[in-house]
Amino acid sequence: MDLKTKLREVPNFPKEGINFIDITTVLQDAEALKECIDVMKAKIESFGDYDLIVGPESRGFIFGTPLAYAMGKGFVPIRKKGKLPYKTISVEYELEYGTDMLEMHIDAIKKGQKVVIVDDLLATGGTTKSNIKLVEQLGGEVVGIAYFVELSFLNGRDKLKGYNVESIVSY
Amino acid sequence: MDLKTKLREVPNFPKEGINFIDITTVLQDAEALKECIDVMKAKIESFGDYDLIVGPESRGFIFGTPLAYAMGKGFVPIRKKGKLPYKTISVEYELEYGTDMLEMHIDAIKKGQKVVIVDDLLATGGTTKSNIKLVEQLGGEVVGIAYFVELSFLNGRDKLKGYNVESIVSY
Repeated sequence: MDLKTKLREVPNFPKEGINFIDITTVLQDAEALKECIDVMKAKIESFGDYDLIVGPESRGFIFGTPLAYAMGKGFVPIRKKGKLPYKTISVEYELEYGTDMLEMHIDAIKKGQKVVIVDDLLATGGTTKSNIKLVEQLGGEVVGIAYFVELSFLNGRDKLKGYNVESIVSY
Repeated sequence: MDLKTKLREVPNFPKEGINFIDITTVLQDAEALKECIDVMKAKIESFGDYDLIVGPESRGFIFGTPLAYAMGKGFVPIRKKGKLPYKTISVEYELEYGTDMLEMHIDAIKKGQKVVIVDDLLATGGTTKSNIKLVEQLGGEVVGIAYFVELSFLNGRDKLKGYNVESIVSY
């Protein structure tokens, strides 16, 4: 199945000039969702052994949890400020105007655990860079990063040098 | 496995007097996550045939997508205002102070499709009631609603009379 044909491009969202890649048309198609998760799973298997999948709010949850379930691993959510109830560590990330915080529970990862980061889309790599900081702050090792979609013209991989990066659909 | 022992109770979050049920301790435990999804799956099977799982942002994504994947169904996200890129329908829901909007893509559900709503927790039932309105506005039929956790002392089921409601851990 060519998953690219199942994605919907929405012009001028969230603002003029941006061609937004809409993943919901894949999610609502049972066969496309299954194919997407199975192909991402195969990419993650190429990273070797690992302990946990980490995914950022909220589209990272959509791909991270089925992958964790399918591979028999645990899932750790990274959330926006004030959403996680227990003690957290945090990292600043850049918004278009100003900054905001991403948080992870302090006991989400044990020192030395191997982690795969999962998200829906690689754009500039900024969110993933913040995710890596959180994982490494707790002593976790990022063995790979897997995306459904990659906007290769934004050169996000440059920001992720030294890490294994995989995606299954590229623009 | 007694999943209740895997949940963490965080006192006074998000405010004084609330005992927050933290699901992240289940998610990060591979065996507990698998057990949770498999038991929810069995509950959903008791609803009979259906076409789609619908889950609200963002903890509904965490349980809805692995269930959709495991059961070979599609997944439809309900999101907060302004997050979905394509044309949407919307419904108001109540916050502690004032109201906000929940949205669903207008082509997410076809008339007559059978839908299961999935979320992490049943409290007062307000969010689920809004989710039902969106599904029914598009002509979908809600054949059941499945939660991981139910706060039965809040009587959320009263708001959901006439619908099949299942949960796997109850307080």
